Amino acid sequence: MTGTRAQTAGEATPAERAATLCDAVLAGDRRSLARLLTAVENRTPLAEAALRRLYPMAGKAQLIGITGPPGAGKSTLVAALIAELRRAGRPVAVVAVDPSSPITGGAVLGDRVRMQAYADDDGVFIRSMASRGHAGGLSSATTAAAAVFDAAGFDAVLIETVGTGQSEVEVAATADTTVVVEAPEMGDEIQAIKAGLLEVADIIVVNKGDRPGAHRTAGQLHAMLADAPHEARPGRPVPKHPEVLVTTAATGEGVVELLAALDRHRTTSGRGDVQATRMARAEAQIWAVLSDRLRDRARSMEAAPMAAALLGAVAAHELDPYAAADRLLELMAGTGASSAGSRD
Amino acid sequence: MTGTRAQTAGEATPAERAATLCDAVLAGDRRSLARLLTAVENRTPLAEAALRRLYPMAGKAQLIGITGPPGAGKSTLVAALIAELRRAGRPVAVVAVDPSSPITGGAVLGDRVRMQAYADDDGVFIRSMASRGHAGGLSSATTAAAAVFDAAGFDAVLIETVGTGQSEVEVAATADTTVVVEAPEMGDEIQAIKAGLLEVADIIVVNKGDRPGAHRTAGQLHAMLADAPHEARPGRPVPKHPEVLVTTAATGEGVVELLAALDRHRTTSGRGDVQATRMARAEAQIWAVLSDRLRDRARSMEAAPMAAALLGAVAAHELDPYAAADRLLELMAGTGASSAGSRD
Repeated sequence: MTGTRAQTAGEATPAERAATLCDAVLAGDRRSLARLLTAVENRTPLAEAALRRLYPMAGKAQLIGITGPPGAGKSTLVAALIAELRRAGRPVAVVAVDPSSPITGGAVLGDRVRMQAYADDDGVFIRSMASRGHAGGLSSATTAAAAVFDAAGFDAVLIETVGTGQSEVEVAATADTTVVVEAPEMGDEIQAIKAGLLEVADIIVVNKGDRPGAHRTAGQLHAMLADAPHEARPGRPVPKHPEVLVTTAATGEGVVELLAALDRHRTTSGRGDVQATRMARAEAQIWAVLSDRLRDRARSMEAAPMAAALLGAVAAHELDPYAAADRLLELMAGTGASSAGSRD
Repeated sequence: MTGTRAQTAGEATPAERAATLCDAVLAGDRRSLARLLTAVENRTPLAEAALRRLYPMAGKAQLIGITGPPGAGKSTLVAALIAELRRAGRPVAVVAVDPSSPITGGAVLGDRVRMQAYADDDGVFIRSMASRGHAGGLSSATTAAAAVFDAAGFDAVLIETVGTGQSEVEVAATADTTVVVEAPEMGDEIQAIKAGLLEVADIIVVNKGDRPGAHRTAGQLHAMLADAPHEARPGRPVPKHPEVLVTTAATGEGVVELLAALDRHRTTSGRGDVQATRMARAEAQIWAVLSDRLRDRARSMEAAPMAAALLGAVAAHELDPYAAADRLLELMAGTGASSAGSRD
């Protein structure tokens, strides 16, 4: 600790508190880890200070996104992956993104309760995150949480989201490798198509493989992907067709093969893909911070009245948003655009 | 047309093409309107130029968001609202946000086909918009499309989204008044709660009112809302409890009452609410443009190599995103931060 202020006034700065908290997290203290994750979710100054310390220690973990329509068995598959990763001695963290309702009081945990089975295992940490109310974007909060787990030594981080909304699907797609889980015969058409899930898939898993239609569904997906044009995702190289696997998560069948496919994607065939995803993730993180900084600046004392006037003019349709944005840019350039990194 | 360039080189600038297109749109040409909406969805330079012209003419329309879980009967309700609004002689436009899949070829139109019934009525215009692939955000594209309809004289604009994802719900919530549609007895619990839909509701409609459970569901919602804390949405005043109505969209029952409730929300009880929503919408539009401008600037010739280096450093975890954002801000302030509004 360097601050004299903390010693004289008994009040630590965010940087000092972050240093203490990070030390505890790196030493394996689970309660400190939970506290830091809450700070990250709430985007407090403590979180920024802690992330700045931890970020350089991250980058080693394998980030695995798991998404798919409701009922495909994502949570069961996550539980099976945890079991298999633990068998291999790997510490594993889960960021489970839940839809939530502030009115009814927080995240709908649903079947995550079964993950309580791992409550006693220090090598497993499961964190639910509400999908709503993230001003800076859900994916930025999730990426930050994954970086914390990564720095804390969890070498596999599973990011589980329900694949029924654009943001939710995108969050899973920020992982190094994205697994789309599909159940056999969930209707006339394959559910994942409807939600636009296939585009983000690096690996497709047809789960509930003990059901009659499983291998037929896998075959349909194969055929469909073979016919599909190779369309590149923004900021990504032309993709290879995703592997299609069949698992029965409830019994663990096919899970070892899924882990092997994940490793293949990471180390060989999908290597360029993973690198491109990491670049896209870095870009999104930088822009999330940048956007925060600019909002703070627009709300700063000097700029606030002008920003409010511009806002009112656009709301009243007296000014178009393009003109307002350009004036705001000029304004922000004038009031300390170069002071960001050099306030002291 | 002012440009000599267009006359000499036979090649109009975006501003000139926008002027011609806007004139046609304002004169009621539907094909031009469709073309402009495509430009808006693809965020072309033509769209920016056109929106700058049209934006001051917008601001009069009533923007109505319609969202809810799949199966609640949103599309049927939208059709019933169109019929009722047309009966009152009001021109009505619909922006229907569809989940989409590039691999399988665009928006899943589903039951929107029945809206074809209005194909011959010049007072009705229905536009589907893909929910995926909007770099600048789905709500920014939807807001821009609504402004185009507004300027073109559609005095009611319905924004219909499926309420199963954060972005999708938020899009409906950018309207002046947000209607959450719920079907009776869709399971043990009321579906809207799960998705966090109630928080965005100005009016709740229990549709399929001819089913046995409809009035019981309405009663449950009433009771639940009475118990709920008055939680303010960001940038909004403390909300009133939403009205709960019962409709049977298939027969049109309750739709007149819904329109009356929409007018009440707009003109009396929810007036402060509507104003706050318009401010929030203006803010989101300005930030979407600002963010675009900054991205363009970061990709500009002078800044690009430095921005790419920062990106690479963050992806490699050699630099944290906060430090990168601060350096990028300095960089952008140095390379033309004040030239935005004065390039010529």
